[in-house]
Amino acid sequence: MTIQLWRLTATQALGKIRAKDLTIEQYASSLLERIKHRDDDVRAWAYLDPAAILEQARQLDKVPFEKRGPLHGLPVAVKDIIYTKDMPTAHGSPIYKDHLVKVDAGSVSILRNAGCLIFGKTTTTEFAAVFAGPKTRNAHSTSRTPGGSSSGSGAAVADFQVPVALGSQTMGSIVRPASFNGTYGFKPTWNAITREGQKFSALTFDTIGFFTRSVDDVEALMDLFAVHDDEESAFTDVKGSRIAVCRTIQWGLAGQGTMSAMEKAVELLKSHGAQVEEISLGSEFDRVVEWHGKLGQTEGGTTFLPEYLSAKQDLHDHLIGWVENRQNITHKDQLEAYDGLSALRPKFDAIASRYDAVLAPSVLDEAPEGLDNTGSPILASTWTALHSPVINIPGFRGPNNMPVGVSLIAPRFRDRHLLKVGKAVGRIFEAEGGWIQGS
Amino acid sequence: MTIQLWRLTATQALGKIRAKDLTIEQYASSLLERIKHRDDDVRAWAYLDPAAILEQARQLDKVPFEKRGPLHGLPVAVKDIIYTKDMPTAHGSPIYKDHLVKVDAGSVSILRNAGCLIFGKTTTTEFAAVFAGPKTRNAHSTSRTPGGSSSGSGAAVADFQVPVALGSQTMGSIVRPASFNGTYGFKPTWNAITREGQKFSALTFDTIGFFTRSVDDVEALMDLFAVHDDEESAFTDVKGSRIAVCRTIQWGLAGQGTMSAMEKAVELLKSHGAQVEEISLGSEFDRVVEWHGKLGQTEGGTTFLPEYLSAKQDLHDHLIGWVENRQNITHKDQLEAYDGLSALRPKFDAIASRYDAVLAPSVLDEAPEGLDNTGSPILASTWTALHSPVINIPGFRGPNNMPVGVSLIAPRFRDRHLLKVGKAVGRIFEAEGGWIQGS
Repeated sequence: MTIQLWRLTATQALGKIRAKDLTIEQYASSLLERIKHRDDDVRAWAYLDPAAILEQARQLDKVPFEKRGPLHGLPVAVKDIIYTKDMPTAHGSPIYKDHLVKVDAGSVSILRNAGCLIFGKTTTTEFAAVFAGPKTRNAHSTSRTPGGSSSGSGAAVADFQVPVALGSQTMGSIVRPASFNGTYGFKPTWNAITREGQKFSALTFDTIGFFTRSVDDVEALMDLFAVHDDEESAFTDVKGSRIAVCRTIQWGLAGQGTMSAMEKAVELLKSHGAQVEEISLGSEFDRVVEWHGKLGQTEGGTTFLPEYLSAKQDLHDHLIGWVENRQNITHKDQLEAYDGLSALRPKFDAIASRYDAVLAPSVLDEAPEGLDNTGSPILASTWTALHSPVINIPGFRGPNNMPVGVSLIAPRFRDRHLLKVGKAVGRIFEAEGGWIQGS
Repeated sequence: MTIQLWRLTATQALGKIRAKDLTIEQYASSLLERIKHRDDDVRAWAYLDPAAILEQARQLDKVPFEKRGPLHGLPVAVKDIIYTKDMPTAHGSPIYKDHLVKVDAGSVSILRNAGCLIFGKTTTTEFAAVFAGPKTRNAHSTSRTPGGSSSGSGAAVADFQVPVALGSQTMGSIVRPASFNGTYGFKPTWNAITREGQKFSALTFDTIGFFTRSVDDVEALMDLFAVHDDEESAFTDVKGSRIAVCRTIQWGLAGQGTMSAMEKAVELLKSHGAQVEEISLGSEFDRVVEWHGKLGQTEGGTTFLPEYLSAKQDLHDHLIGWVENRQNITHKDQLEAYDGLSALRPKFDAIASRYDAVLAPSVLDEAPEGLDNTGSPILASTWTALHSPVINIPGFRGPNNMPVGVSLIAPRFRDRHLLKVGKAVGRIFEAEGGWIQGS
């Protein structure tokens, strides 16, 4: 029986490449076969050039092993709001159709320099800032949204078309597609990784992150990006760990898929020996989502002024509204939001520090029907606003047989600790939660 | 007697162009003549293509008046860390020599769309992040630094080579060259103007700003960039106004030029009827400069990782030190700095709101001798750290006959109010302070 090479995680594939069991060209060919087979259904790619991929793969195969970087040969998809010097970056906008800027984003530069095969560009909602979906469909249902704004990145990784994809999150644009497609999605601490060369939306929230099918893969990426905690995590096992459950004040909006997933998650954690404690952040956190929304709009108004002035007719009305400040948000409101969120960040860190992780819902429910709207980020935006690292852990199944994930959250700059916890928890959820990746 | 067209401020030149008294080609030619005459001494340009400028000017002259944007025909120089689609952007680094990315920064896009003539690229220290000077000399002395990092922008505007230049400030990179060369330099509130397409250094501090020879010019730019206060300023006159003098805790480092300028500034404000009050920010502000430095280094470490990994041999040792974290700054330190500064911003706003403006030194002294070092930003970094808008007002003369400016500061998002005060105060300082622009 032939191994389906496209099923390999990044860590597995890199192991085989290093062991000379696999050439980069073989691996890339297998992914391209998978894409060929699946692209009509999933439509995850904004730009993909198979011939250029194979040529890149052959060049990478020629590099002597002793000269190879740490992730040599790893195919990585790039969300189409992130610059790649050899492919257009259209930002999901007609204004930037076929726009080739001939510079790599900082993140892409680091990946390319480590030997990664920059595979193609994955679809995004317009400027990663609106909810109108691109052409992409959920990896598990052609009639459902993959979520957004990192639509193509979430769908392509979940669908085994590529092992790793770059995404970005300003509201819930990593954890939502990760949950909807049933894969891992990691948003590091704000500004732990450079966003240079990534389209701005809201400077105070925009964060670059990753989609993978294993936490080992995220750890390998964090090694490359030099993301380290001050001290190594003392976490060893779910047994004896302390997990806080925080449903946030928007919990009332959650649907059956999320409610069941959270219930099952708590049950599994308890049955594996974790101490699970329900917490509330307290009323001083009540305005976090409101403040996040106000800053998203005011900073977005600053961001999209150039496009508004030069190409308003091609800009989504939502973004025109931000520039025109239709909600009449004053600078006083903006400062209250800046200062209010800033004051809460250390308070949340202090709360989260008392636990190994905070468990929270990632999304309202399973991916909804339809491709027009990528779904609500409301349950995720609290953690984005607080600059906390978050990982979506897949493993649960909703009433319509679609995947549902949950979030684990840690204090700022405890990224590596969070991944350690996420790996142990993910092992349990994936084995016993009811959803198996690639099932 | 011929008018020296190159002496015109932006507002004056735009007035003549609108009145059909001046073609854009005539104006551009005059500036190019000035540059030809002065460039051997000042060396402000990283990239300048006279033929392309004249061609652009002729194209702009052909646009019917009724189709012209608000700043049609205004020549603007662009600091060479800001992308221009038709000129290379080298960031003052050998790594990016002749680097053409074919995209305009958001700021440049707004200017170009308004009809500005994007004139050329002005020199910067390496990535606007180090103190080793570029080739540029002070507009008033070939043996002295023009300051940095916006070296070319400050020198070119002060030397009448261009009426407006874009700069950026992460520590004191606008107010220092403005003071050293004797011109206006305005750093708006953090994130009031998009920095997309401008090289990152420290995300939390980087701010785009402007060099001009009049406050009217800054006001015209702020109209274009849609920078407005919540309420129109009630300030009318220096007479009866309230000005706080804040020397900051680093005042002991100031030299004779700055000490005299501050003394004279206070004297002039008083003699024109202002109530002037010495204030201290209080001991809770004592760590602002330390925190600013720590975040500059840690955020800089994140920013320059791509260049460190791919081209360490061409990176300034200073920046290598940030990436390698030679100072052993922990994430705990970094968070203390983030949260400490965030808590102080509204406190400074409250203090500054009790006055029409806060007067503070811009620099330690006159521009020092030598081109190797662009001078210390220490007196400016407090306001950058606090995200406050700042304007350097020229008008004073140091013991070596070099210009010295002082800063006026306002609460966040009171940019337009600050410009109103700055215009009135500048009129007095320029007339009676002892330094006349272009003298």
